[in-house]
Amino acid sequence: MDHGGAQQAQLEQVRGALAALETLEGISGLLEWDQQTMMPAGGGEVRGAQLALMARLQHERLADPALGGALEALADQLGPPPAAPSMADVDAVMVARALHKHHRAVRVPTALVGALAEAKNAGFRAWVAAREARDFSMFAPALRRLVDLSRERAAALGGGAHPYDALLEDFDAGATVAQLQPLLVGLGDQLAPRVAAAAQAGPGPRLHLPAPALARLHAQVLEAMGWDGERGRLDQSIHPFSLGIHPGDVRITTHTDPDDPLGCLSSTMHEAGHGLYEQGLPLRLSGTGLRAAAGTALHESQSRFWENVIGRSEAFFEWLAPRWAAEHAAAGAPGPAPSAAALYAAANRVSPSLIRVHADETTYNLHIIVRFELELGLFSGALPIEALPEAWDAAYQARLGLRPAHATEGVLQDVHWCSGYFGYFPSYTLGNLMAAGFRAALEAARPALWAEVGRGELQPTLAWLRENVHQHGNLLTTQQVLDRAIGPRDLVADLLAHLDGRGLAAARAQA
Amino acid sequence: MDHGGAQQAQLEQVRGALAALETLEGISGLLEWDQQTMMPAGGGEVRGAQLALMARLQHERLADPALGGALEALADQLGPPPAAPSMADVDAVMVARALHKHHRAVRVPTALVGALAEAKNAGFRAWVAAREARDFSMFAPALRRLVDLSRERAAALGGGAHPYDALLEDFDAGATVAQLQPLLVGLGDQLAPRVAAAAQAGPGPRLHLPAPALARLHAQVLEAMGWDGERGRLDQSIHPFSLGIHPGDVRITTHTDPDDPLGCLSSTMHEAGHGLYEQGLPLRLSGTGLRAAAGTALHESQSRFWENVIGRSEAFFEWLAPRWAAEHAAAGAPGPAPSAAALYAAANRVSPSLIRVHADETTYNLHIIVRFELELGLFSGALPIEALPEAWDAAYQARLGLRPAHATEGVLQDVHWCSGYFGYFPSYTLGNLMAAGFRAALEAARPALWAEVGRGELQPTLAWLRENVHQHGNLLTTQQVLDRAIGPRDLVADLLAHLDGRGLAAARAQA
Repeated sequence: MDHGGAQQAQLEQVRGALAALETLEGISGLLEWDQQTMMPAGGGEVRGAQLALMARLQHERLADPALGGALEALADQLGPPPAAPSMADVDAVMVARALHKHHRAVRVPTALVGALAEAKNAGFRAWVAAREARDFSMFAPALRRLVDLSRERAAALGGGAHPYDALLEDFDAGATVAQLQPLLVGLGDQLAPRVAAAAQAGPGPRLHLPAPALARLHAQVLEAMGWDGERGRLDQSIHPFSLGIHPGDVRITTHTDPDDPLGCLSSTMHEAGHGLYEQGLPLRLSGTGLRAAAGTALHESQSRFWENVIGRSEAFFEWLAPRWAAEHAAAGAPGPAPSAAALYAAANRVSPSLIRVHADETTYNLHIIVRFELELGLFSGALPIEALPEAWDAAYQARLGLRPAHATEGVLQDVHWCSGYFGYFPSYTLGNLMAAGFRAALEAARPALWAEVGRGELQPTLAWLRENVHQHGNLLTTQQVLDRAIGPRDLVADLLAHLDGRGLAAARAQA
Repeated sequence: MDHGGAQQAQLEQVRGALAALETLEGISGLLEWDQQTMMPAGGGEVRGAQLALMARLQHERLADPALGGALEALADQLGPPPAAPSMADVDAVMVARALHKHHRAVRVPTALVGALAEAKNAGFRAWVAAREARDFSMFAPALRRLVDLSRERAAALGGGAHPYDALLEDFDAGATVAQLQPLLVGLGDQLAPRVAAAAQAGPGPRLHLPAPALARLHAQVLEAMGWDGERGRLDQSIHPFSLGIHPGDVRITTHTDPDDPLGCLSSTMHEAGHGLYEQGLPLRLSGTGLRAAAGTALHESQSRFWENVIGRSEAFFEWLAPRWAAEHAAAGAPGPAPSAAALYAAANRVSPSLIRVHADETTYNLHIIVRFELELGLFSGALPIEALPEAWDAAYQARLGLRPAHATEGVLQDVHWCSGYFGYFPSYTLGNLMAAGFRAALEAARPALWAEVGRGELQPTLAWLRENVHQHGNLLTTQQVLDRAIGPRDLVADLLAHLDGRGLAAARAQA
């Protein structure tokens, strides 16, 4: 076989392996979605075995020495991908990304992969029970096992200055504690005085919309956003989430709490933002491992963009208010429906609170900093599990001036740790920073942006995101996406400007 | 390593492989369930790839020469299982069953397994579209491919006097055309004059129950039957089905058509009968391949037992009628609710009809014989696909005296062929025969049976089925289950006696 023929055969071998991995990942995704939406209680134990087997199968295939050999040979021949890859560079990028994952996989024993998957399943079940009982001690053993196994995995992966770096790498290639810590803490320092100046005491206005009316409003918003119901579904779950099985099968969940219609709407737009990214991933890159998000921070930039930049804007509420009022009236709800101005003020009210997913856009980042610092402690070993609840409460006191009354509104509030997602939280604030950058770029590109949003014309916005973010999949890194879409900008300045013009401005106006 | 140590190691190797196969089968089950209940349209293509990959993975593991070697060695050492196995014989039965499956697997190329799985997925999608359009030609290419691949597979498996024997073996070990053909045709000959004498012309009485009321009635019946909602779920689908992922996670579907409440109730009890078998499979046999039904005919005996023996009995309607009336009244439905006698007469009305799943208990078997004879033609090669619709219509004219007006009430009515389930249909009539035998045995064991049913006390019946059928899993063959539970009986005579005492008696009473 000549050189070109051998290379072709190796490329086909690699593409076959990566296509199978994509298929296995999609199946694992369905198992996880079903676990949180449809699975009866009695299915929990075997679901753990199913997820663990799928995790082992994926790991074995990724760590396969034959795949590694083909990847090494191809990497030698194709060289590193260019700094600004195009579709002509798919093979080189595919090989570079897959080789990076292969090198990481071979360092982790398959038994540890299976044990972690089982521990995640047990952790999720323990978390649900502990939340119900508001009792952290019911979750502590499962969490300890998850942290221990994750630390073992991080040690096996090695490579970073901090044990936490290996976890960050799971979500965002190249992210490090050394880079993140000053960024997040610096942002926190700039936010603290703003929050203190703007904070509005006491509960916000009470809004109410019956659940069926709220569901219909969600449907209208999803349609305006360009959500494709033929290529996805919307369900209810305790903790809203999104999951892409394939660009043609993207599943998002929400809830419809009649006493928190704005929170539910935010949640729906957040998950739909993730879902639109997944529906927009490039089918032409199927079977290369590149039909995937560039990273979780960029993923969160999409959800936070729709939730906050669009979903908390004055223009959006101008479009939404009459639709809200129509659903309000059709449902025979008591009292007048809120005005656009009232909705805008309520959605942008700055007030420290205990629950991250209900936080306003400004204080949200303080919740992230709390989790980031606690995770650093868990993974450096400085913070033992038994000290976590008190450390959580103390951090909330220090950063937000509030103390949880019980664990379910404190350390048990998030699904991430019980699912083994350590290192994920920084993605949210990174996503907020990027979303602010996208806002600035989009406003420059489309002067009519806010006029369009005010008429509910969100398709040009989606088209811009498709063009500048979604269509690249993982062919471009997050940084390459940002370089092209936004250019060199100070994202902290962009985020502060965005926040100063929203909730902080609204607070000043009310003060 | 001494002899015992080597045997122990081989047993552990085999159990590990069989446990992984069970896990993979459960995952495939979830993929299929989701496809028919939850999956958005855009997920169809990738779902085909997912199911095909899972089928290939299962096949490769089953055909694995290392597994085969261990099984051969163990079979030599343990010898064949006894004619009446007990729990002490688990290893011998496990090895014998797995070796049989292994021998079949090695004869079929993995590529054919994958191609068949893809063809089933494409077939299901083509069938849904063709049904909608009432156009067989839209389904014909997919069906031809399914039949061609299935014939190729049957030829690779070989071993039977008729090509169809290899298909029967998929569902019921040891079943052959030579044995089934005289049984089914003989039954048909005995039924034909009875149907002619009893047949009631024209449509039956019109019953109506609003969908939410019907759903609540279903829930009451499921509860009385002993269905465990913590270990299963009930959903809606076009074609009701049941699927056991694990005894703790059993999923059944039904529909709630307000204009066919009796048909929907039958369907629900049918699927719940399957589901109760799955929920009753022995957890202690996990990881042996024996925590499974003994065969599909026995599976159908459970569904048909609940649907017909219990669900069409006078006693059952005595219990049901007041509950029906209460739901009827609560829903504000017009007119009086039907009496127990009217429900019994309607449920046992003998009248040839076009749709199998709506057929009365007597003519149902004629529907099965039509399909069985057409399948024999398809697999012997005597019946080409393009001649199938006309052959179907002619067979209905001959056996039932009716001719479908279009393909959706004719050759397109069943989900089986588009799912590649050739050889399945005889299981229904075999199940009817066994259910009649169980009825006779249960009446002998519990003289209070019908008094209990009349009070809605169905738990003793479930307990008897658990004890005599479910708990054995696949440790006993179907014949061994029947030998123990029923003893030597003429099941054709039992079925005819059962039918003569039901619909045929009801018809005589009305005539």
